[in-house]
Amino acid sequence: MSNIAASIITIGDELLIGQTIDTNSAWIAQHLNELGIDVLRRVAVGDDKVAIVKALNEEIANATIVIITGGLGPTADDITKPLLCEYFGGKMVVSEQVLEHVKAMMMKRNRPFLERNLKQAEVPDICTVLFNKMGSAPGMWFDKNGKVVIALPGVPFEMVSIMEDEVLPRFRKQFFSDALLHRSVITAGEGESFIAEKIKDIEESLPAHIRLAYLPGAGMVKLRLTGRAANAEVLGSELDKWQRQLAERLSEIVIAMEDIPLEHVLGRWFAANGKTLGLAESCTGGYVGHLITQVAGASDYFKGSIVCYAEEIKQSLLGVTADMLAQEGAVSETVVVEMARGALKVLDVDYAFAITGLLGPAATADRVEVGTIWMAVADKDSVKTKKFWFPYDRARNKDMAVSMGMLMIWKFISRK
Amino acid sequence: MSNIAASIITIGDELLIGQTIDTNSAWIAQHLNELGIDVLRRVAVGDDKVAIVKALNEEIANATIVIITGGLGPTADDITKPLLCEYFGGKMVVSEQVLEHVKAMMMKRNRPFLERNLKQAEVPDICTVLFNKMGSAPGMWFDKNGKVVIALPGVPFEMVSIMEDEVLPRFRKQFFSDALLHRSVITAGEGESFIAEKIKDIEESLPAHIRLAYLPGAGMVKLRLTGRAANAEVLGSELDKWQRQLAERLSEIVIAMEDIPLEHVLGRWFAANGKTLGLAESCTGGYVGHLITQVAGASDYFKGSIVCYAEEIKQSLLGVTADMLAQEGAVSETVVVEMARGALKVLDVDYAFAITGLLGPAATADRVEVGTIWMAVADKDSVKTKKFWFPYDRARNKDMAVSMGMLMIWKFISRK
Repeated sequence: MSNIAASIITIGDELLIGQTIDTNSAWIAQHLNELGIDVLRRVAVGDDKVAIVKALNEEIANATIVIITGGLGPTADDITKPLLCEYFGGKMVVSEQVLEHVKAMMMKRNRPFLERNLKQAEVPDICTVLFNKMGSAPGMWFDKNGKVVIALPGVPFEMVSIMEDEVLPRFRKQFFSDALLHRSVITAGEGESFIAEKIKDIEESLPAHIRLAYLPGAGMVKLRLTGRAANAEVLGSELDKWQRQLAERLSEIVIAMEDIPLEHVLGRWFAANGKTLGLAESCTGGYVGHLITQVAGASDYFKGSIVCYAEEIKQSLLGVTADMLAQEGAVSETVVVEMARGALKVLDVDYAFAITGLLGPAATADRVEVGTIWMAVADKDSVKTKKFWFPYDRARNKDMAVSMGMLMIWKFISRK
Repeated sequence: MSNIAASIITIGDELLIGQTIDTNSAWIAQHLNELGIDVLRRVAVGDDKVAIVKALNEEIANATIVIITGGLGPTADDITKPLLCEYFGGKMVVSEQVLEHVKAMMMKRNRPFLERNLKQAEVPDICTVLFNKMGSAPGMWFDKNGKVVIALPGVPFEMVSIMEDEVLPRFRKQFFSDALLHRSVITAGEGESFIAEKIKDIEESLPAHIRLAYLPGAGMVKLRLTGRAANAEVLGSELDKWQRQLAERLSEIVIAMEDIPLEHVLGRWFAANGKTLGLAESCTGGYVGHLITQVAGASDYFKGSIVCYAEEIKQSLLGVTADMLAQEGAVSETVVVEMARGALKVLDVDYAFAITGLLGPAATADRVEVGTIWMAVADKDSVKTKKFWFPYDRARNKDMAVSMGMLMIWKFISRK
């Protein structure tokens, strides 16, 4: 049984010159997918009438639902609204609801109501207005010949708000579809090829309605099973069975049975075990702490971090000595161990993670190669250290260091 | 004079279910653009033969250059390589260079050489192999009827490496084009509509070969001038003139004359003025420090951060008292001022920024509304505080807080 087919069209010159990364398409695709709507294509075009109309014609031909984002702002380079009005043969009228809302927004923000704000309240008379509680540009829903075309603003949180409040609930009612379910097995420490070889026989015996995908990330590979069937309950048990098989085969490297970031895996462990975590970050500048605190409720187990970017902070707060720094250098096992022990003590936590390294690009005065990172995890009884070397640029070296660091914490606490 | 036209095709089911955010397209678009190659469209399709061939046919019809990323990995869901071989009428052969490279990579990583790794060394005999020094899947360059089709792996740093080493230098040689130049004016504190009204007359008098785009971000609006002309030098001076006009008109809100992140704007000021910066972060968990240290050379001015997520860390390290916490609460002006003063002292810096807030979703036991944030910037003589309230979810509230925080530091140091 085939699903409803959708296409996403993203409009904006900024996408074609690469100034903006398109996060909207991913969000929309994910949420349509959860409903059982298949996104067949995603197309990005510039603020250009001919290109927009061409994309509209092509995507409407192939998909039942077309979602357009962008091009609805109040400035001169945003041309989508009048274009859609013409395309669907309507005329522009002022929406009183939108007008009131825009006026109220401007007043609340102490901003004057400008002529171009009035433009924002104009909508084609042949669409259903989708209220935008987060911003001034309303969404629009067009029905034509059994196809649905939806236009949404490009600002991500405005798009999300209209999708959640207006679009997804209508889709749920309007379209029937098969159940579509996912199961994930998250692994760490081995590559895609290794895993593929190890689970070859399981992969080959998957039935036609269940697919396996490999999603590699930094130090991790996510395996995702996707199943489609009429009966959600039966499909669910079936997927559970395959998920268990994969997890058993890969038990040495499995870190989670659902697609959650590593900081959530850590968070669950710390919350469940009533233990606390503290950090001493040098080269990562606070990045580990930032990720740990992305998890709501992190205050139950995360106490803080000493970001000791300068050597004197390592000394004054973490008990690293001038001698150690002189003899071993700031990027050394001795210093990272002292940082971890210092964090255990000064933050008064059960577990501490410490990291010091040279991310690049310049080698400065240090005695280690650019890309060298030392990490340590400690509890009151023991400390484990590891040296890494990454060959990338500064930002990617930092990303890798943080991923590997969180993985190291996870291995330490789970004794793997 | 028209530029060379390009299309980008991104392949992978993970893009259509929204599991992966497409950063590759933005990177490619940006770098083609710098060369003067216009990206007309970006299309994402799944790991599906029919969809890939359809996209290829359509994009080749409209563009001179088609760049494909993804679908080249060693696992069963990657089908692009044999498909392209068939599409261009070639046959698969083993590339000795790639084979040696893959073997060497596996050995260096202490991994066995598997049968599927051998597959990675196979390439169509009718393409130019683009060496991938960062990974095992080579890039491929196909020439056909004056069109160029390039296939690259989907792993971002592998794609970047092949583009930089192999593809962009060849494009530079092979394609002629007009000069294309950009100028930016970065503003903070006013919205798109306000700015558009303020510079209306300038925008209207821009010549046809110069365009103005508005790129709104968190608390900021970037204005980008794009010009095309035969003579790069003349165009450059012309753009400089328009950029100056915009900057003079918007002088109250201009923070930079080039498109760099706020952390770089701050970094330049601190480096140029020989001053140091320290932080005391509660709700942001280290995020401000992470961004500040994204800048190479941050160690010249950034000393560190006390990430005081728990109240006891605010007390033990920053001099916040139990009385203050009991009377005012952790999210209060009194506490944030004490945090900033504490950071000035304990980190021994010229300027300190402090932040404490309630990001949500739960209101916990605090006496402030979810989304409330207090910030302070201090030097030895003065302290400035500000209260914010953000209506979004946890992650976006954090993003907003960090943007507004860096802006607050900038306003304080630049005395605006």
